[in-house]
Amino acid sequence: MIKVVILGSGNVAYHLAGALSSAKHIDLVQRYSRDNKNDILFDPNIPFTTKLDKLYLADVYIIAINDDAIEEFTQNLSQLQGLVVHTSGSISMMAIHKNLRKGVLYPVQSFSINRPINLRLVPFAIETEFNEDYMLLKELAASISDQIFQVNSYQREKLHVSAVFANNFSNYMYLTAKDICDQNQLPFEILKPIIIETAQKIMTMDPFVAQTGPARRKDTKVITKHLLSLEKEKKEIYSVLSEAINNRFYH
Amino acid sequence: MIKVVILGSGNVAYHLAGALSSAKHIDLVQRYSRDNKNDILFDPNIPFTTKLDKLYLADVYIIAINDDAIEEFTQNLSQLQGLVVHTSGSISMMAIHKNLRKGVLYPVQSFSINRPINLRLVPFAIETEFNEDYMLLKELAASISDQIFQVNSYQREKLHVSAVFANNFSNYMYLTAKDICDQNQLPFEILKPIIIETAQKIMTMDPFVAQTGPARRKDTKVITKHLLSLEKEKKEIYSVLSEAINNRFYH
Repeated sequence: MIKVVILGSGNVAYHLAGALSSAKHIDLVQRYSRDNKNDILFDPNIPFTTKLDKLYLADVYIIAINDDAIEEFTQNLSQLQGLVVHTSGSISMMAIHKNLRKGVLYPVQSFSINRPINLRLVPFAIETEFNEDYMLLKELAASISDQIFQVNSYQREKLHVSAVFANNFSNYMYLTAKDICDQNQLPFEILKPIIIETAQKIMTMDPFVAQTGPARRKDTKVITKHLLSLEKEKKEIYSVLSEAINNRFYH
Repeated sequence: MIKVVILGSGNVAYHLAGALSSAKHIDLVQRYSRDNKNDILFDPNIPFTTKLDKLYLADVYIIAINDDAIEEFTQNLSQLQGLVVHTSGSISMMAIHKNLRKGVLYPVQSFSINRPINLRLVPFAIETEFNEDYMLLKELAASISDQIFQVNSYQREKLHVSAVFANNFSNYMYLTAKDICDQNQLPFEILKPIIIETAQKIMTMDPFVAQTGPARRKDTKVITKHLLSLEKEKKEIYSVLSEAINNRFYH
């Protein structure tokens, strides 16, 4: 059994706690949060503390708190004997206090408290300082997910940037599309099927092959008309992306 | 029964022919293509011609050919008595020859020949010059889809621009993410679950509420790190989109 303590009470902590508490070979011995926030959401059978000096002994401590707070937070954990990992895509493993055995357990998914998710399908990018810790963290991750990827620090940074494009920026494309609909009395519903189809298509088709649209086919007449009809940021985004698509496909 | 002729043999013509040939109250009397391209894909029971002077009489002629070719193509149809519609999001209804009763039947979806699609879920934006033609086109569209939206020319142009963001530009976000993965020996598989989740989330959540990421939370440390790690077009896209997200949420 791998003994685990989870520190944090946000989206990631919530979904990890749910999966780990029922995982084989895992004993979720405790969870910590500085306050009782979201307390009601968690399984009441998991021992809980708000005091860092009352942490139980464990093989792995999973820190699932705000990115900005990780470095300072681990200053208070410097006496721990177990492996201490954070779950952030953007924070260096070296942000964890120098005295500690360190690692990263980065779930490449966007979590919401109120959206159930099957963690077995969530890819985990894992990184450790030492190989024996890698084996331990891999065993822990494999107990809740079937998608485990070993990455180094450089790759994880690149993975996080690429996730910003795949997740945050594609959502901003949806938001921009919705803004244009709202301004023109068009129901956003009309775009939902094409949004789902666009995402589903690249599950089996290379997005290079799937690329369509005025910029892909160099339809300057339509591009010019669209640019004239857009303002400010939307015009700039349209222009920059059309130019980038042109360069990607024709240079 | 509404008698229909389909002109064209591409993705849209293929999917429309399939649905119309089995739709109630529709008699797909003929299809036209200038050559036998894709012939094998179509139902052989639909009468076929490559000669415009052999077109049958019909209530509605659906032109599903390349956007660029529509205007010139309708010059050859100026004697037709039925309603003549094209299926393009970006071309004006007035591109259709002045002698003709005109309309637009724009399916807001991205079609591929080899991906089956349930047309009943595909939104159709329809536009006509005259109200009686609208009733006819609506009846035709309702025979194959449950999602019919009446739009005017101005709205259709806006709808097409918004579809470029929702479809073409979001696909380009996937392609950029994949390019970063490829350059860093990361399998693109690792991003597929977050891409699907991002699209599915906004089926029930406003994309404004769903927006997350470094730019949304004004995380300048991460943004600066990402910008330093990106080059050329990717850097510019990241910068322009982060700035736009900042303006959208904080101004």
